[in-house]
Formats: sequence, structure tokens, C-alpha cells
Amino acid sequence: MKHEYPAALRELVAQLKRMPGVGPRSAERMALWMVGARDARSGEIAAAISAVAQSVRGCVQCGFFTTGEVCGICADESRVRESICVVEQPTDILPLERTGVFRGLYHALGGRISPLDHVGPEDLRIGALLERVRAGQPTEVILALGADVEGEATASYIAGLLKPHPVQITRIAQGLPAGGGLEHADELTLSRALGGRVKW
Amino acid sequence: MKHEYPAALRELVAQLKRMPGVGPRSAERMALWMVGARDARSGEIAAAISAVAQSVRGCVQCGFFTTGEVCGICADESRVRESICVVEQPTDILPLERTGVFRGLYHALGGRISPLDHVGPEDLRIGALLERVRAGQPTEVILALGADVEGEATASYIAGLLKPHPVQITRIAQGLPAGGGLEHADELTLSRALGGRVKW
Repeated sequence: MKHEYPAALRELVAQLKRMPGVGPRSAERMALWMVGARDARSGEIAAAISAVAQSVRGCVQCGFFTTGEVCGICADESRVRESICVVEQPTDILPLERTGVFRGLYHALGGRISPLDHVGPEDLRIGALLERVRAGQPTEVILALGADVEGEATASYIAGLLKPHPVQITRIAQGLPAGGGLEHADELTLSRALGGRVKW
Repeated sequence: MKHEYPAALRELVAQLKRMPGVGPRSAERMALWMVGARDARSGEIAAAISAVAQSVRGCVQCGFFTTGEVCGICADESRVRESICVVEQPTDILPLERTGVFRGLYHALGGRISPLDHVGPEDLRIGALLERVRAGQPTEVILALGADVEGEATASYIAGLLKPHPVQITRIAQGLPAGGGLEHADELTLSRALGGRVKW
């Protein structure tokens, strides 16, 4: 007879393994840590997960995380409403926000056009973006999408749709990453850095 | 105004960060994964955690994980009751069990004597071990404790307590790890491997 952990424990390991970046060994370590706890910590974690699952959703306007209808950024009256920064994922918003450079509003598409993954324009929040541009009449739409093939294709698709609108379309710069020497940059990065050169 | 994730999301990140081997970035990734889920997976994880917290405890006899009074190993009638293998942690039991070599019962101390960590003999399940030896009259007690200073000290302390009892006390071998060449072994391992040499 082969002995194993109790079924509840094995189920927890299986569940934890579903999370990104969690392998079999770390899932087991986490599960055993929860069992080993004499205090209330595993209950606190379960409660925190349930609270998030029940309360956190996407902002109806920009797609960022919120517990209400609209998120804190969209509700912030100090933000410049004339500028919309388009990103692929809601998780892209905070990194940009932390730079402190951008004072406008965001729009998360929820992904990028990728025929290989069966993601077409209709699967993304592109219609909602057009609606925002039509209704809000912003002066600038900044495309802050990935510098890969799918990001480029999505950016160019959106730029085409926005062309009839009286709005300035820009995209974030591509080039040498900060702190990176030329010796670590690949050819494509260098050619884009060269092509995007600016006056001193 | 600085914008951040909703409080429920930040609380979840803080809770996940408490788990072993989970840093700020992986905690954030897990939390965002749970939010991004349109399906029931975060609820399933929360339920699995609660189920473990409520149902899994230590076996009253050996300390291994169980949802009942005694664990599957202790309840298994095919196990040799005359042999008790003493380990530090209940998590040490399954690795030994998976070797398939040992057919007796286990006894997890719940730690090892470590004055620096304020862990004394009275904090461990040593009294319960003596009680088992007295009541069950096993023929052998195998000390399968760590090969470090605290493991050695704990083993020698227990061996001293068991001396008056008519039981064979053994300890697991120390030496070269399987697959490890001599060039990777430190001096102490080599001296123990030499000292523990057996006839061909």
C-alpha cells in the first residue's frame, strides 16, 4: 500500500500548481506551510482570495482593476482627459503609472491581435476605444503596445481605425533600454534605435 | 494622487507574499492571475485552502498529515510495528516512504533541539516517543535526523534517553550522496564516508 498526503492536501497542491510560475515543488512547499501553520494565516489567505474574486473587476471605462464601476485613475479629476494611453493588458497600466510621466487616462485592450492564438480585433476592447474617442474627443491617443509582431500589428490596425478622427496618434519610442549597452542589444533594437534618433 | 491596485488586491499580494519562496513579484503575478480569471479557479483555490486548514492535522501517534485521528501509515496493518523511524518534521516522512525501503512506523519530533532558536527538548514530541517505546516495545528505533549540528545533538539526546530501554538504536548512514563524485563532497562528508566504510 502506497501512502500519500491526505486527499485535501493533494487537491491544494494541484490547485496551487495552476498558478503562474508555481511548479510542483513550490506548490507542495506552500501547501505544507499552510498545514504547518498553527495560526490563522491560511484562513487569511483564503479570505483574501475570496475577497478579490468577489470584489475586484475591470473598470468599465479603461479596464484597470477596481472594486467599483470606474477605477481610481478614471475617477481622478486631476487627470488630463484629452490624452488616452492604449495598452494591451490592465497590468501594463501600473508600470506606466509609476513612471509619473503620464497624466492622462488609459485604455486596456485586454490583449493584442494574434491570429495564431485566435485573437481577432473583435475579441479586444477596440470598439470601446473608438466609442471613447468619438464621445470624449481626446486630442491624443498614445499607442503603448508591445514592440513585437503582434503589438505592431495591433497598433497599426488601431491607427487605421482612428485615422478618420481628428486626433493625434502617437506611439511610445523603441530603442536602447535604459542602462543597456550596445553590445547587449539585438540588431532589430539597434535599427529601431537608429531610425528613431532625435536631435541632441 | 498616486494610483495603486484596489485594497483587496494589495491585501491578497501581501498575504501571498507570506508563503515560503514567494517574493513580491510572484505574489503580484499570482494575484493578478486570480483577478484575470473569468472562471471559478480562484474560488477553487480558496476552497482548497480552507478545506486543508479545516481538515488536515497531525496524526496523534506519529505526527504525519491526516484528516482523521491517526494517519494512513499508522493505520496500515501491513506495517511492521516493531520498528520506529524518528524524523524531525512530518514532511520528512514522505521522502523516506517513497524509497519503499522502510516498512515500519514513523515518529516526527516537530523539529530539532536548537538553543539558538529557543527550541528545547520540551518543545519537541520526545516525551511522546518515549511513551511509544515504553508502551509498544519496539525492537528498533532508527534516528533519521539531519546530518548537521542540531540533528546530531537531537539524535544523541534521544539516544541517551532510550539507553535504559531494551531497544536497538540505529541511525541512518552518512556519506557520499548518490551520484555525487568525490570532487563535489566537502571534507566532513568525506571523513564521515570514510569512517562509515563497509565491507565490499
